[in-house]
Amino acid sequence: MSTPDWINRSIAKLLPNAKKGDPLASSKARAASLPRSTGQRLEATLRRGQEALSPRVLRRTLVELQGIADPQVSEVEGGRRAMGVIQWYARTTPEQRRDAWLLMSEQFGPDAKKVSAAREQYDAAQGTGDEGSAEIRLRRAFVSPRTRLLKRFAVAPQGMRFLLELRSELLPQLKTDKRLVALDAELEGLFSTWFDLAFLELRRISWDSPASLIEKLMHYEAVHDIRSWADVKNRLDSDRRCYGFFHPNLPDEPLIFIEVAFTQAMADGITPLLDEGAASVDPASSSTAIFYSISNTQRGLRGVSFGDSLIKRVVETLHEEFPKLRHFATLSPIPGLRGWLGKNAAGLLDKLDDKERLELGQALGSTPPSTQSLLTALEAPLALPASSPVRQMLLRCAAHYLAQGWGNGKPLDAVARFHLGNGARVERLNWGADPSAKGLKQSWGLMVNYLYDLKRLDKHRALLAQGTIPVSGDIESLHF
Amino acid sequence: MSTPDWINRSIAKLLPNAKKGDPLASSKARAASLPRSTGQRLEATLRRGQEALSPRVLRRTLVELQGIADPQVSEVEGGRRAMGVIQWYARTTPEQRRDAWLLMSEQFGPDAKKVSAAREQYDAAQGTGDEGSAEIRLRRAFVSPRTRLLKRFAVAPQGMRFLLELRSELLPQLKTDKRLVALDAELEGLFSTWFDLAFLELRRISWDSPASLIEKLMHYEAVHDIRSWADVKNRLDSDRRCYGFFHPNLPDEPLIFIEVAFTQAMADGITPLLDEGAASVDPASSSTAIFYSISNTQRGLRGVSFGDSLIKRVVETLHEEFPKLRHFATLSPIPGLRGWLGKNAAGLLDKLDDKERLELGQALGSTPPSTQSLLTALEAPLALPASSPVRQMLLRCAAHYLAQGWGNGKPLDAVARFHLGNGARVERLNWGADPSAKGLKQSWGLMVNYLYDLKRLDKHRALLAQGTIPVSGDIESLHF
Amino acid sequence: MSTPDWINRSIAKLLPNAKKGDPLASSKARAASLPRSTGQRLEATLRRGQEALSPRVLRRTLVELQGIADPQVSEVEGGRRAMGVIQWYARTTPEQRRDAWLLMSEQFGPDAKKVSAAREQYDAAQGTGDEGSAEIRLRRAFVSPRTRLLKRFAVAPQGMRFLLELRSELLPQLKTDKRLVALDAELEGLFSTWFDLAFLELRRISWDSPASLIEKLMHYEAVHDIRSWADVKNRLDSDRRCYGFFHPNLPDEPLIFIEVAFTQAMADGITPLLDEGAASVDPASSSTAIFYSISNTQRGLRGVSFGDSLIKRVVETLHEEFPKLRHFATLSPIPGLRGWLGKNAAGLLDKLDDKERLELGQALGSTPPSTQSLLTALEAPLALPASSPVRQMLLRCAAHYLAQGWGNGKPLDAVARFHLGNGARVERLNWGADPSAKGLKQSWGLMVNYLYDLKRLDKHRALLAQGTIPVSGDIESLHF
Amino acid sequence: MSTPDWINRSIAKLLPNAKKGDPLASSKARAASLPRSTGQRLEATLRRGQEALSPRVLRRTLVELQGIADPQVSEVEGGRRAMGVIQWYARTTPEQRRDAWLLMSEQFGPDAKKVSAAREQYDAAQGTGDEGSAEIRLRRAFVSPRTRLLKRFAVAPQGMRFLLELRSELLPQLKTDKRLVALDAELEGLFSTWFDLAFLELRRISWDSPASLIEKLMHYEAVHDIRSWADVKNRLDSDRRCYGFFHPNLPDEPLIFIEVAFTQAMADGITPLLDEGAASVDPASSSTAIFYSISNTQRGLRGVSFGDSLIKRVVETLHEEFPKLRHFATLSPIPGLRGWLGKNAAGLLDKLDDKERLELGQALGSTPPSTQSLLTALEAPLALPASSPVRQMLLRCAAHYLAQGWGNGKPLDAVARFHLGNGARVERLNWGADPSAKGLKQSWGLMVNYLYDLKRLDKHRALLAQGTIPVSGDIESLHF
Repeated sequence: MSTPDWINRSIAKLLPNAKKGDPLASSKARAASLPRSTGQRLEATLRRGQEALSPRVLRRTLVELQGIADPQVSEVEGGRRAMGVIQWYARTTPEQRRDAWLLMSEQFGPDAKKVSAAREQYDAAQGTGDEGSAEIRLRRAFVSPRTRLLKRFAVAPQGMRFLLELRSELLPQLKTDKRLVALDAELEGLFSTWFDLAFLELRRISWDSPASLIEKLMHYEAVHDIRSWADVKNRLDSDRRCYGFFHPNLPDEPLIFIEVAFTQAMADGITPLLDEGAASVDPASSSTAIFYSISNTQRGLRGVSFGDSLIKRVVETLHEEFPKLRHFATLSPIPGLRGWLGKNAAGLLDKLDDKERLELGQALGSTPPSTQSLLTALEAPLALPASSPVRQMLLRCAAHYLAQGWGNGKPLDAVARFHLGNGARVERLNWGADPSAKGLKQSWGLMVNYLYDLKRLDKHRALLAQGTIPVSGDIESLHF
Repeated sequence: MSTPDWINRSIAKLLPNAKKGDPLASSKARAASLPRSTGQRLEATLRRGQEALSPRVLRRTLVELQGIADPQVSEVEGGRRAMGVIQWYARTTPEQRRDAWLLMSEQFGPDAKKVSAAREQYDAAQGTGDEGSAEIRLRRAFVSPRTRLLKRFAVAPQGMRFLLELRSELLPQLKTDKRLVALDAELEGLFSTWFDLAFLELRRISWDSPASLIEKLMHYEAVHDIRSWADVKNRLDSDRRCYGFFHPNLPDEPLIFIEVAFTQAMADGITPLLDEGAASVDPASSSTAIFYSISNTQRGLRGVSFGDSLIKRVVETLHEEFPKLRHFATLSPIPGLRGWLGKNAAGLLDKLDDKERLELGQALGSTPPSTQSLLTALEAPLALPASSPVRQMLLRCAAHYLAQGWGNGKPLDAVARFHLGNGARVERLNWGADPSAKGLKQSWGLMVNYLYDLKRLDKHRALLAQGTIPVSGDIESLHF
Repeated sequence: MSTPDWINRSIAKLLPNAKKGDPLASSKARAASLPRSTGQRLEATLRRGQEALSPRVLRRTLVELQGIADPQVSEVEGGRRAMGVIQWYARTTPEQRRDAWLLMSEQFGPDAKKVSAAREQYDAAQGTGDEGSAEIRLRRAFVSPRTRLLKRFAVAPQGMRFLLELRSELLPQLKTDKRLVALDAELEGLFSTWFDLAFLELRRISWDSPASLIEKLMHYEAVHDIRSWADVKNRLDSDRRCYGFFHPNLPDEPLIFIEVAFTQAMADGITPLLDEGAASVDPASSSTAIFYSISNTQRGLRGVSFGDSLIKRVVETLHEEFPKLRHFATLSPIPGLRGWLGKNAAGLLDKLDDKERLELGQALGSTPPSTQSLLTALEAPLALPASSPVRQMLLRCAAHYLAQGWGNGKPLDAVARFHLGNGARVERLNWGADPSAKGLKQSWGLMVNYLYDLKRLDKHRALLAQGTIPVSGDIESLHF
Repeated sequence: MSTPDWINRSIAKLLPNAKKGDPLASSKARAASLPRSTGQRLEATLRRGQEALSPRVLRRTLVELQGIADPQVSEVEGGRRAMGVIQWYARTTPEQRRDAWLLMSEQFGPDAKKVSAAREQYDAAQGTGDEGSAEIRLRRAFVSPRTRLLKRFAVAPQGMRFLLELRSELLPQLKTDKRLVALDAELEGLFSTWFDLAFLELRRISWDSPASLIEKLMHYEAVHDIRSWADVKNRLDSDRRCYGFFHPNLPDEPLIFIEVAFTQAMADGITPLLDEGAASVDPASSSTAIFYSISNTQRGLRGVSFGDSLIKRVVETLHEEFPKLRHFATLSPIPGLRGWLGKNAAGLLDKLDDKERLELGQALGSTPPSTQSLLTALEAPLALPASSPVRQMLLRCAAHYLAQGWGNGKPLDAVARFHLGNGARVERLNWGADPSAKGLKQSWGLMVNYLYDLKRLDKHRALLAQGTIPVSGDIESLHF
């Protein structure tokens, strides 16, 4: 099999006087051994005519990648070659990177013939007692050169970080370019084994941790922005706890981290927790641990989930260090509330009885109360008195959203989805709990506690699997 | 879908008065959700009637395993359940373990319906530009619950060691029981990612290493038995080097280790290297590093190879520490020589010319020389004078064995296979190099040097791929 | 021997109904064994009548201290008792602490009788060949219970820190209260052995060091204030170096630290070195290492000097890491310049020749030039053009100050004293090098480079010992 | 002041043609600054005419030592010079070393004039309120150049070990050569501060400790010889504990270590504790910790005691790890018993009443019983039946030795002295407890338990201080 003529021709044009010493020569030799299908695919790729890489560079890149994946070559040598590509890649434009992804995604698939043969054997084996071997053969046929390619990148120094960042850049383009799906899935598959829970180390992060690590927390914090070093010092102080999962190949930053405060009662607002001047608390005599922030750091690990395990390990660790702790709960944002209520307020208003509707209408100055008037009245939620029917309405709506909001077989709210999936239950709504701009924008300042009742996690999970969101009596009595 | 009646009936017999508090009750509930195919397979398994586990225990074990693999359950919980099974397993008999393996191998395969549907989509997708997604779907359909099951074992404390030992015990039975192939292949696949080179740390082992670690070297050493602590101290002294690959989940023992001595010329015998009383050597002024022993420690990692990478990393490390080193070679046994020569001596004797045949015949007291007379004369090889035609004959045979011995597309000798595969070449035969009982038994005391010429590793590897074993001029001139 | 009656009486008044279970009882028992002289001293102390501690507390404190120093008690027990005093001390007022110091200083001196007897033996031994033993006996007689007392404080957890802080608080009072001298000298003597160079570890401090440690740098930095975390990050970046000496008992903070920048020429101003936005530099290709800040952290270690050793070790370490470095120099403040010039300007103006005096007078608008007019003209030094005679005058004065300023057998300027004592020489003056308020106030913005010429350190030191300050040709040509 | 002429003359003879480049030249220059008294002392030393070093070498050595102690030289430079002397010293003979010690001991004493002046000031200060300063001045006058000399040796790499070994070699000669006393005392003084308890780290030694460290235990074990690696493994196993004190400058070996076994009752024999095949014990459910061996490793640290502190820290550590432990006791040899009984048997025989004397005489076949007949009968102590009067007699004698043996104000037996000094009491004698040759030789196989009753340590210590050895009722009833 040979490289398609048109490619060779175009290279010939670009390099009319290629000599013996031509650095491409050995690459050409290697390229000559491409299986037909690869050549054809490459041809198709090149014909698209939208490449950011010139045909010559594209082809050379392919040859380089093939050199890495070459099964004749040792892993150490493969890793060394990968290092070269990593250095080249660092200097490319986003468009050129996309071309490299396409090569990885399309040119390193499983061998169609092998797959076909293995399928026939598999079909034939059914019922013969040899199903096991046949299954193995078929699965092996699906092990693509792409797997070897990516593993060898992982061997290179900083190779794991390279792959994580590659996927992180690739993910946003996945929806619009289906050709990248194979590469993405291969990465997710490898990551889910490489970043297996068995390899993760739970480590406390404190004010004695490296400044460079703490700086990363400031960067990655996704729930309540860290405003300054004084802010992060407060969160890492001796009366707080912060834990992260670390992986041996990424020793300098956590994959995910969680921040914990200690209180005597379930926290009803974020302000005191973020107050750098607040008096110190004695964790050893506290009854309650509040998880007030949890952040993933590696976008490239999408689909590989640690949050559940992190919370469970942290609960165990805290329990051992502070035997007096009895309650474990979150203080969480409700990021989807405003968006959801905008679309669903009308339906909820309809559920009010006459008396309720009247009272609310009066408070809103709009009879009957309308979505528009409700939203207008909510523009300054912190100014609403405790007795305001508007306030009561929003609480009921929020309870409804959390207790009944269901879509695609899952809770609607992203944060709810996470904690409910872990076996927590919706415990309490807190008015004005997050008065920051972000908090007001997401949920008019409302926050919610999810309670981790260690003895009921499994029961709650089972309820959820049957389509029922577990909630406290308070929430139950609130929603429609 | 329900558990087959006959199973339920047999359980009913065993447990006629099962009460509410029955510890099996919840297991039963879980078992009730088995997919039909699993039940059917189990039924088939049980009907074989040769089980070491009673039907009840077998079934309960299955339920336990399903509880671990349950996707509804968190990884942490899965790991905790796995720990229970690990503890049970530790007390079982070999036959009972085999039953557990069969459950893992046969009951946790991919879902036939999903596979079938994915195949149809895959076929339909060819040529549509959606091949990538279809490939992914098909591969996902092949991801069996067994993968999740094994991953969750890995999460348990000591879980990785459990899996390694399980496979180590399982491997010898693989040939006679094909039903175990699926489990074995699944383990090999996971191990090849978990024990990826990217995760291995090259560490020096010295006399300052933990005594418990050094004791393990004594246990695992596979080439030249370690006779005493004085012996191992000599091998770890400041004028020696020993390196191992370590994995984060098995921090207490190397996966593989290699022993290095420093010399001024290529070593021609093992005795001075193992002599505890020999004078110390200065590595910094030595020209040659001799690899005189390399041992794998984990039988359970069969198929996952590190030796190649280890030698390359060690060569790099030594090169950096001792810039004057110029030669890297092994002093290796020839384990297959005696067995091979017994079968092939006659053919080789035929290759002698008349003069050679005459001389050898006289030396053997048998004209013409026969296989039997040759083997008899070799019974005390160390007594043969340097000029003996018998000695010359054996050297020629050994050279032939190493340079021409080829089978199944690979070098015949297991040690040769390893070093040649790494790109080394057969360099020199050494008479009387291993006068130990083992050395005499394997190869009449002969040892061989394989030379690692860093600039030619790739060239040698390519030669080998074409079927030619690279050898030195000396060896070339010796063989028939 | 008994406690003086008047003390017992005063205690009797305070505790009229002391019962058997009285917590003081055992203390009393211990107090009963005080040697007479101690009792007398205590009496004298108490009679001064200015104590912040009541007689009762004072006496109890003495008993506690004696309990710690008791030679009958084990070191572990002594350390445990010391811990109690440390906790009490933490809650005392400055005046009460002074009382505790006086007890330590005055009540734990050497035994006068023993000293006297040992002196007689020493005198008698001269010329007998037994001088060695006699010397030993005499020195032992001087080993006071105070030494044992302080050593046992050191054994308590945090005891070393306690002693360091105690001396740090005590030092300012030493001039006005001679009674504290004995305690201070005892502490200095112990510290000079405990903090022996043999125990100090040179460690790099970087952005990967604990945040809590870096926060301490910000606190202790004594030369160029650290303004923010961005500032300190710049000083610890990968193109900088910072080293400190650490002691095993104070693992969390350096005793002294030094900041180093890399340049292609001797730095002539501090601004680019503190510029957080400046482009990164490659140390490996730099010719010059600039020490631009060195700070002690433990005031309590006064008299125990590390700076000399630190600079030498850092020079060695840098030399090894960056073989291309050829010059090692400081960029240093001249803290004493302004104070000195105010007093000495008149004398220097007299040294000008007529022409110089005329030019300077014209520039100052004052003929002849006066001290006052000179200082007035220097009020905005950065505005002076390069050719201004005023500028030239200041440079000459500064050169004179550094090259000729001599007092008490040492260079006048404190920073000069340190670097010249290490063997450096005065190399170059830099106009406007420190435009900060502090720099302008100390030395009208002037800074000086001291050059560490490794081959001449000893020669320079010898020159200095003979009273000559080593300077460069530039400086030589500048001064009067 | 100049070097005495006769020394210069003898050097002139040895080096008639000394040239400009003479490596001694700079040494000579340094020597020229020797204070008179030093020269005179050296002259005296040399006149003794018994030196192992030639006058030239002796003088050069002195100059080298003075170069190290030179206060004009930095500590780093002093340390570097010391390194040179350490290397020279390593190659010298014992006699030459003695000469070097004499130089250190005799040539670096305090300055007689300074001492004299300080004494006058001290005398004058008495009663003036300035006693503190005067005390300080006098003590400073006694700080000899020897202190600086030794401190700078400590700064050199391996310098601390050099000093320890120097003193270890010097100690045996101290009795016969009083001139070495000053050096010895200076070393002891420095060691007692350098090896302060505050610097020692208690570390567990286990089978996971470095083999090189464990090998040192085998070397240093002083009570029950370690026979093999299997023996030491048994003592470090998971059901045992071994702890040592480590110093930051000697990280590779403990200064002292102790071995602990766990039992259900106070151990009555050493054999089961040293039995490698004995079944494993669960420390967590044991009631008793038995200290069965404690060994110092550094002879050079004589006079600096850690044993007391080690046992207390170990008791605390064990208590924390195993809260069920209630008894802490030793199983100890009685090394001085046989020697003592040989001299004191007659007196003890006299204390027997008639009946006892008769019975014993019959058993010994000697009426009345004589020392000689008693010792003869004890030649095979293990053969004596439990009821033998001889056995009873030995037990009574041993009890008497331990409970009444008193000399120089201390218990006679060296091991008893140590444990009683720590506050333990003599608890129980154990017949045949150490059947080894050493055990039979020391004490006819008898061993003793000392009990550490944590609540009574102080009380026991006080008893001892009053001259009473605390013993159990059993021992009380045994002795005469």
